[in-house]
Formats: sequence, C-alpha cells, structure tokens
Amino acid sequence: MTGRDGGADLVAIEPSPVVILVRPQLAENIGAVARAMGNGGLFHLRIVAPRDGWPQARAWRMASGANRILDAATVYDTVPAAVADLHRVFATCPRPRHIIKPVLTARGAAAELHAIGARRLRAGVLFGPERAGLDNDDIACADSLIRYDLNPGFMSLNLAQAVMILGYEWFIAREAEAAPRQFQTNEARIADKAELENFMAHLTRACDASGFLKNPQKRPGMVRNLRHFFQRGEVTTQELNTLHGIISELSRPR
Amino acid sequence: MTGRDGGADLVAIEPSPVVILVRPQLAENIGAVARAMGNGGLFHLRIVAPRDGWPQARAWRMASGANRILDAATVYDTVPAAVADLHRVFATCPRPRHIIKPVLTARGAAAELHAIGARRLRAGVLFGPERAGLDNDDIACADSLIRYDLNPGFMSLNLAQAVMILGYEWFIAREAEAAPRQFQTNEARIADKAELENFMAHLTRACDASGFLKNPQKRPGMVRNLRHFFQRGEVTTQELNTLHGIISELSRPR
Repeated sequence: MTGRDGGADLVAIEPSPVVILVRPQLAENIGAVARAMGNGGLFHLRIVAPRDGWPQARAWRMASGANRILDAATVYDTVPAAVADLHRVFATCPRPRHIIKPVLTARGAAAELHAIGARRLRAGVLFGPERAGLDNDDIACADSLIRYDLNPGFMSLNLAQAVMILGYEWFIAREAEAAPRQFQTNEARIADKAELENFMAHLTRACDASGFLKNPQKRPGMVRNLRHFFQRGEVTTQELNTLHGIISELSRPR
Repeated sequence: MTGRDGGADLVAIEPSPVVILVRPQLAENIGAVARAMGNGGLFHLRIVAPRDGWPQARAWRMASGANRILDAATVYDTVPAAVADLHRVFATCPRPRHIIKPVLTARGAAAELHAIGARRLRAGVLFGPERAGLDNDDIACADSLIRYDLNPGFMSLNLAQAVMILGYEWFIAREAEAAPRQFQTNEARIADKAELENFMAHLTRACDASGFLKNPQKRPGMVRNLRHFFQRGEVTTQELNTLHGIISELSRPR
C-alpha cells in the first residue's frame, strides 16, 4: 500500500485547512504527520512549542518525501498565536469534557472545513501532544470539537493516525466543495482569532479591574468559561466593536 | 488525540475481518498496525513471511498496549496458506494493474466486509510490504481490490496508516451490520480458499499434463490469469466439484 512517489510536487490544495500540532514531543511524529498530510492533500502545518525544538532532522527522515510540508511549517509559542489569523478552529478531543461546544465526527468536520473554505474563511485543527492530549486552555481556543468514531475500548490513537483520518476524510469530501453554501454579506466580516483574542484581553482586564475575577483559584476556570462562551458562534468584527464599547463603557471609573 | 487506555480488554468484535500483512519488513510497523487495528476494532492479524522473523519485541513496544492482537497473531509461509480458510479476500493496491477484478474504495470495502460477515463468511484483507506493495501473485489470491481515495500526487502511504483507514471505515460501518443481506441457502456452500486452491492445483496439473502450459516463460502469467478468472465471483463447493469432475474427465488418458 505504499508507493515510490516523492513529494517534489506537493502543493497546497486550497482552501486547505491548517494542521496545528500543540506541544508535540517526538520529531518523528511531526514527520509522520507531514507524510499523512501529503496523503490527504493537506499542506499547512503549524507547530506550537515543540518539546525538542525545531527544525529536527528526524522529522524529515520520517516524512517519506513530504519535505515541502515540513519546509513550510511555522512555529509558535502559544496556541492563541498559532490561531490568530484563523476564523474557525477545531480541536480534536477523544472525550467529552462537559464543554458546551459543537462536537463533530471527522466526516462531519471534513464537510464543515470545505464549507468554511468555500466562504474563503481560514480554518485550523488542533492536535494535542502524544500522551496527554489537548488541555482545557487549548480547547478553549477552539470553536468546535472533533471526536473520532473509533473503538472506545482502545483509545490510544497515534498522532499521525489522527491527522491521517482527518486528511482522508478531507480529501474524500473535496467534491462537495464545488457547491458553495452560505456566504457572508459584504457588510459583515467574521472576526479572526486575533481580533477575538484582543477582545478577550479587554474583557479580562475589565473583569480583573472590577474585582469580578478576584478569587485566584477560580479565575482560570472563569476566564476559560468566558472564552468558551465568546467562541461559540462566529463573531463579526462589528459585534466585537460593539462588545468592546460595552466593556469600555461599563468599566469607566464612576 | 491520544489516551491512556490500555488494551487489556481488547477482544474481537465479530465478524471481524482478518488483516494479513504480506512480507512486512519492519517489526515496528507490525506493532503500529496492531495499534491501528485496536483503534478500528479489528482483532485478527496474520503475517506472511515477515522479513525479520516472528515474534519481535519491537512490535510489542510499538503497539501501545494492543498486545492481545500481537499475542494472537499467526504466521504463514505463503499467501495461499494465510487465506486458506477465508471465503473472500481483498487486496489493497494503490494502482490499477490491468486486472479484471472489482475495485472498491475503503468505504465500499468496509460495507462489503460487514455484508460478508452478516452471511457468516470469513473475509481477509491483504496489505503488501512497505516499499514494493503486493506483487501480481499476491493480488491473484484476492477476489477484489481496495484502492484508497487519497492524494495521487503523494502515494507513499505508511503500512499502519493503510490499516488505520480500513479499520476506521470498518468501525464506522458497523451499524449497517444489523440488517442482514442475502444469505446463501442451505444447499449452496461458498468454497473457502483452500478448496479453491485445491481446484487450482488440479487444474494446473491437468493443464501441465496436457501441454497447455508448456511455454515456461508464459506459464506463470497464464496460471495467474486462470486464478483471476476462478476468483472473480464466489464459487460454491458444488460448482467446484463439478469443475473437478470436468477436469478429471477431460484429462483422462485416451
């Protein structure tokens, strides 16, 4: 089931979603991910805080020729930085965590990714580190969750396998792309994650100043919950401006 | 996207098709295959002529707890021996090879595997060695081909990834299993591969004796073509008996 085809011709099939590896441990796995991305026609790879630094020759050795994907990969310190220019972020997450977010199968997410691309919005998918998976703060950066329909009796899914399944579904679903769905009007522009982050910072500062977040033990969870809430649907830049205005207004010294 | 769940509870979800690795090179890949099988709810593993022998501790180290699958794996010298007790055999094959056999996608094959299981027939899927893939003689042992719908610009598919995609589709398609389809009647029994092999041996002996296969350069291809022909549909034991009778009759000294 292998072939000798190199990856010299690998290019992005646009609109190709971004694969974001969060704190990956083994460079070999990053290389294996690139290979799986090549199989699935994915191209854009971002790496958040790789344990052993970047670049690593071991990744290229494991990529079986998907070098262009690794050559073009970019590295970030944090998940918010890695998703700043994206409009929609998905998080792969094996278990439900009592979070109110849409949960999609890989197949459903693939259809959604194509629909997002057809609207010329940029999407990314977060994959957690090899053992622990994504933590709550990572997941708080996502709009939707992806849960794979796989044997619940054996959940240990290799990182490259997780990327492979998404890439496989994405490649199969590319036919559906031809039919564009809902487009935003010219008036409304979907905020990207950096704009949302800017708003969240504003909101958090205001909450801190007001004493709303004064309990240091409860603060992280409360901030996360706020983040979940504001990520639930697509927020337009106009809506964000309005929300900024409300916070500024409410937090003015009285 | 990983978890800490061990594989201590791994059992076969029947009717679980057999994964048959043909001449695999790296024991690590056999272990990674077992892990992917665990994810997809597959259990039965057969290994044909592993390059480095069997068992190999490296396989268990790569299996992330799918030990039961490796413990239960069986080893064979040849593909015909590995498929002898099966009724339907699929071969994963990245490129069409001018062979007249049904070609299925992974998704189509998964549905077919469930339909076969619902009829209480045993099925297996052949996966070739890491670099070369299955050769023509291997493919001649199969009834149908499976061709994955993946990026044709980057065909280098890891062995465990190939098994993962099949297992993933098989696990998703398990719902369809509830509705049984066509059953054979009590009178007709589908021949297993050993019975078919026995017939092929009879046919080949008769052809050799008659001089039909006397050109040594053409012989392998001709035998393979005969094998392709007789594998095209399911053959019942009654039909095989009839064919045996015809050959015996035709090859009687006159």
